[in-house]
Amino acid sequence: MNAAIITIGDEILIGQIVDTNSAWIAENLNLLGIKVDEIVSVSDDSSHIKNTLRRYEGNKELIIITGGLGPTKDDLTKTTLAEFFDSELVMNYEVLSHIENLFGERGIKLSEVNRMQAMLPAKCRVLHNPSGTAAGMWFERGGSVFVSMPGVPYELKDIFSQSLLPELHRVNNGNVIVHRTLMTQGVPESLLSDRIKDWEDALPDFVKLAYLPRPGIVRLRLSAIGESSVQLKEILEFEIHKLLHIIDKDVFSLEDTTLEKVVGDLLIEKAHTLATAESCTGGSIASLITSVPGSSRYFKGSVVAYDNLIKEEIVNVKGDTIRKYGAVSQQVVEEMSRGVLDLLKADYAIATSGIAGPDGGTAEKPVGTIWISVSSAEKTVSKRFLFGEHRGRNVERTTLTALNMLRKMILGID
Amino acid sequence: MNAAIITIGDEILIGQIVDTNSAWIAENLNLLGIKVDEIVSVSDDSSHIKNTLRRYEGNKELIIITGGLGPTKDDLTKTTLAEFFDSELVMNYEVLSHIENLFGERGIKLSEVNRMQAMLPAKCRVLHNPSGTAAGMWFERGGSVFVSMPGVPYELKDIFSQSLLPELHRVNNGNVIVHRTLMTQGVPESLLSDRIKDWEDALPDFVKLAYLPRPGIVRLRLSAIGESSVQLKEILEFEIHKLLHIIDKDVFSLEDTTLEKVVGDLLIEKAHTLATAESCTGGSIASLITSVPGSSRYFKGSVVAYDNLIKEEIVNVKGDTIRKYGAVSQQVVEEMSRGVLDLLKADYAIATSGIAGPDGGTAEKPVGTIWISVSSAEKTVSKRFLFGEHRGRNVERTTLTALNMLRKMILGID
Repeated sequence: MNAAIITIGDEILIGQIVDTNSAWIAENLNLLGIKVDEIVSVSDDSSHIKNTLRRYEGNKELIIITGGLGPTKDDLTKTTLAEFFDSELVMNYEVLSHIENLFGERGIKLSEVNRMQAMLPAKCRVLHNPSGTAAGMWFERGGSVFVSMPGVPYELKDIFSQSLLPELHRVNNGNVIVHRTLMTQGVPESLLSDRIKDWEDALPDFVKLAYLPRPGIVRLRLSAIGESSVQLKEILEFEIHKLLHIIDKDVFSLEDTTLEKVVGDLLIEKAHTLATAESCTGGSIASLITSVPGSSRYFKGSVVAYDNLIKEEIVNVKGDTIRKYGAVSQQVVEEMSRGVLDLLKADYAIATSGIAGPDGGTAEKPVGTIWISVSSAEKTVSKRFLFGEHRGRNVERTTLTALNMLRKMILGID
Repeated sequence: MNAAIITIGDEILIGQIVDTNSAWIAENLNLLGIKVDEIVSVSDDSSHIKNTLRRYEGNKELIIITGGLGPTKDDLTKTTLAEFFDSELVMNYEVLSHIENLFGERGIKLSEVNRMQAMLPAKCRVLHNPSGTAAGMWFERGGSVFVSMPGVPYELKDIFSQSLLPELHRVNNGNVIVHRTLMTQGVPESLLSDRIKDWEDALPDFVKLAYLPRPGIVRLRLSAIGESSVQLKEILEFEIHKLLHIIDKDVFSLEDTTLEKVVGDLLIEKAHTLATAESCTGGSIASLITSVPGSSRYFKGSVVAYDNLIKEEIVNVKGDTIRKYGAVSQQVVEEMSRGVLDLLKADYAIATSGIAGPDGGTAEKPVGTIWISVSSAEKTVSKRFLFGEHRGRNVERTTLTALNMLRKMILGID
């Protein structure tokens, strides 16, 4: 099955936002074995949209349209589609009731503009939008399937995963693709690639490896294409077994999950608790940990000790230690993790102190210098890192590296 | 002048990378008053590239092509362009000498593959690439200008700025576009649109309004097209003046910036400091505040009091208050903001307590119930909100709403 993706919206054409939706859709269509031939961004203009639809109709089996489905009048995708398919707009009472529920939950009064979002082309099949008011739409004509979804990323993803996927499985009957994802932390993509080169070169032709990096994390995705999913799964299992002999220690999960979830599950399993004392990460570790539902079972809290006085007065770092070694030092970060362990009465504690940048670096401690310490009642492990110059990425890497150090301490593999 | 941007590369079509080049080019063409009508990504396939070029030739005055100019064999843009313009490849000795210099500087020996990069279509004008080996190319045919540049972002930007811009100024003598962006917080898109409908309907034809929403924030972008940028700026200024009469209190900036930056600048201006006590936001407010470089000037720190005992023992919330009203209550959140104000000796404090979800709701306090309190030495303002069911978005909205409450308190407009 081949596909085209159309993104509607002037904000992309003037460069105000980057089109990340298309990459997400392309990646997920690819997982189903659907090949994206073209991605196009067009303006909020009805005739431009129709010309683009005409260009793909009959040439692409699947045409995905995103954007332009909000309640405001600059959103004209819906009326354009109604015209293109020569289909009148009718009130869909199921969608209306969903919209009413959404507004009811938030205690906001439904406006006429919102009610009108339930007016949908009679010829479309509705794709339920679990998290918003703009419904997805499915049309078929001339050998093409047309799918329209709103451009708000989380709404798009929810419609895609919950409403569109089952439909796509139905119409896309060819080979099956089987995927397995391994999560690694702490090894840059290029180093990882060097290390597993021989294994990668020996993979069978129908097995592909993709490196999906983001700061601090590299996902390794293996995809196998063929007729029997049972057989493909066995082959991937075997390849992963071989791969783990090489990079076992750097893999934190054999599933596509997050490090914060893996660490949370370990803490629940052991019935242990966690606290953090954060300087350079500024609450980012606490924030990531508490993004996991149910984290109140194991997360006690955090002291974000941005000011040195707070390191002393609340976390019990000795003033002498700060004066002698500086706030960004092994001594201070270790006193921070031990201090917050006691203060918040936790089983494990993480502490960070570093120079996130872009300013504040010295010759001895350049921007990107980060100390991380992890403590339990029995021991403290601390490490120094030299990350890059970008503030946001330094915080992100420190956060993930700290969680992985904790994971290793819990598992006793540090 | 109108334009199309073509990006070449399978890595975009499988979703492995996000196309950020096109947004950058679009933004920069826009600044010259060149309107981008379409952005398209196509595969590394010669006939696909030629079909796309044919589609735009004569219809767009400027066609920008990026990608596919590296030395490896999957990069076929150059040979495809040579075929498309029926032009043989000839050695360009100026480019060759530039490539030799680049390699000389890096102390690397020139390979035959690199030498071949100086073979360029005879019919093109070369756009010098100051930072790489792949030259840019300029062709003219059928009323269109075709420009090809490599996809490596910094090379693209250098060619654009240093070699292409002067050429574009020469050929582009027409209209300019002027933009203004307003940032609003706390009003949903549909409500905002209702409220400013009359103003929007009365806008002149050549002024367009776009709503750019994300959780908790709506950006309003006004664009005007015409001959005189001075005149257009005046007209936008006048329209914004009228708009502010309607939504003044909800606008936190007249520039495209972030709320955390606006609040940080206010604190610096007043030489005041900030602390937070976070329950349901789990450190997310601290994390957002410290994402701004230089925030250590005004941010003292935070106590993430996830566990109720920490609310009592560290932040000095009375045990009785928690038992009587529950942790998610006006009384507790106010004691939290006052407690952390004293504890961390700050001028302002923010506190949050709520049910982020997906579990933990009751009939009286459903998921999405959030209390926010902001304190100074003089006063405390607290508010209850009912957001949605999505944990991440509840945290994001709470974070932004809390920062906006602080902004209003600092400015005395609450």
